[in-house]
Amino acid sequence: MESQKSAVIVLSGGLDSTTTMGIAKEAGYKLYALTFDYGQRHRRELESAEAVASFYGAVHKVMVLGDLFAESALSEGTLRERPLSEGPLTERPAGETKEDLSSLGFVEQGQLLPATYVPARNVLFLALALSYAEKVKAEAIYMGVNALDNAGYPDCRPAFIEAFQQVVNCGTERGVLGKGVRLETPLIQLEKEEIVSLALQLQCPLHLTHTCYAGQYPACGQCASCVSRRDAFMRLGLVDPLPYQ
Amino acid sequence: MESQKSAVIVLSGGLDSTTTMGIAKEAGYKLYALTFDYGQRHRRELESAEAVASFYGAVHKVMVLGDLFAESALSEGTLRERPLSEGPLTERPAGETKEDLSSLGFVEQGQLLPATYVPARNVLFLALALSYAEKVKAEAIYMGVNALDNAGYPDCRPAFIEAFQQVVNCGTERGVLGKGVRLETPLIQLEKEEIVSLALQLQCPLHLTHTCYAGQYPACGQCASCVSRRDAFMRLGLVDPLPYQ
Repeated sequence: MESQKSAVIVLSGGLDSTTTMGIAKEAGYKLYALTFDYGQRHRRELESAEAVASFYGAVHKVMVLGDLFAESALSEGTLRERPLSEGPLTERPAGETKEDLSSLGFVEQGQLLPATYVPARNVLFLALALSYAEKVKAEAIYMGVNALDNAGYPDCRPAFIEAFQQVVNCGTERGVLGKGVRLETPLIQLEKEEIVSLALQLQCPLHLTHTCYAGQYPACGQCASCVSRRDAFMRLGLVDPLPYQ
Repeated sequence: MESQKSAVIVLSGGLDSTTTMGIAKEAGYKLYALTFDYGQRHRRELESAEAVASFYGAVHKVMVLGDLFAESALSEGTLRERPLSEGPLTERPAGETKEDLSSLGFVEQGQLLPATYVPARNVLFLALALSYAEKVKAEAIYMGVNALDNAGYPDCRPAFIEAFQQVVNCGTERGVLGKGVRLETPLIQLEKEEIVSLALQLQCPLHLTHTCYAGQYPACGQCASCVSRRDAFMRLGLVDPLPYQ
């Protein structure tokens, strides 16, 4: 009997990556969920990732990048907020003041809005996912990047994913043998509404996910991330299983 | 007056990366040296990197990957030894036994030789260097990869570097504007002898470098790395400024 093929899934615990887990599960893979702990102020995101991984019976690996970022210049001074699973922040999260963020080093001089921006973040995340995929001999890496949701970020676009696939093909032992790990970004062209619809069709555990950018539970319902998610459910005439305030 | 342009240099403290520093210095860049501390058993390598960075008046950033690797699967079980600055190991380092390495988890089952192998390591190192380069707005990233010295590793070859350049061009804000950071690998086609020759021509501080794979000072002179370096000096009819046992 042939052993089951494996896939690494970059899992934040949000709607997009949870849907991506469902797609990889449906494809029949043994699932290796990979979550990056990069000092998210909203720890609930990590709890959601754990719950989703557990729901799918996935091996769950959390890579702690916090210290790395602290040791590097990456988290010094010029951070702008960029949630792992959602698009660019367009409004101030509820319950936070500029002063709070300033003391954490999250506010750039002259910037009105906080933003966690790790330059070339998906390059780094994919590099780590690739290293992990080589380790566990996974056949595919699934990532819930979303070109429309993340319109401002070049490292969420198809051209970038294609370029990274070439890096895999040229830069790994399996790649040069024509058996490189395959990058799968099934949501890259989907609207939020289509993602919700797909998630429901695949019976993804959306009740376990975390979307609220303000890190609240029940979700605040007011932040850009909550609004985008609720709007998608509303347009579909459906009820979000997550509790809102 | 236009401000000085900057370059990030991946600096291990070995011969190749130190020569690469000399090349970047000669090109007139303000130098940002980037060293990865990934739990090298030979801490002297890190001291050499510090000394070389200081010699060149470079900003020196050490990114600690040890915890990351420990948290990830990357350092579990299947590590094979791969020195940062040198090629694949072809002989057992002096003063070490298989048992020593085994207890550290460095020996793979059925493997005769120890080997630190982080899959797709240069993908990861370049991703981190890229993130740093975006942060400091560097114009170039210099890396002393050496296709001949590292014949066994696809992520040291020109095709891989070209593919990663495309990732930069597609995946960063500056890249899509046609102003992406430029990857410079000036040693990629050079033999060790040519590298030594170039280093001397550029008056690189070879006395500060560390090459000995056994981590000894004075250098052991017996390990594959020492032998390769000494041979290069000998073929040039020159004396290595490093003391050997």
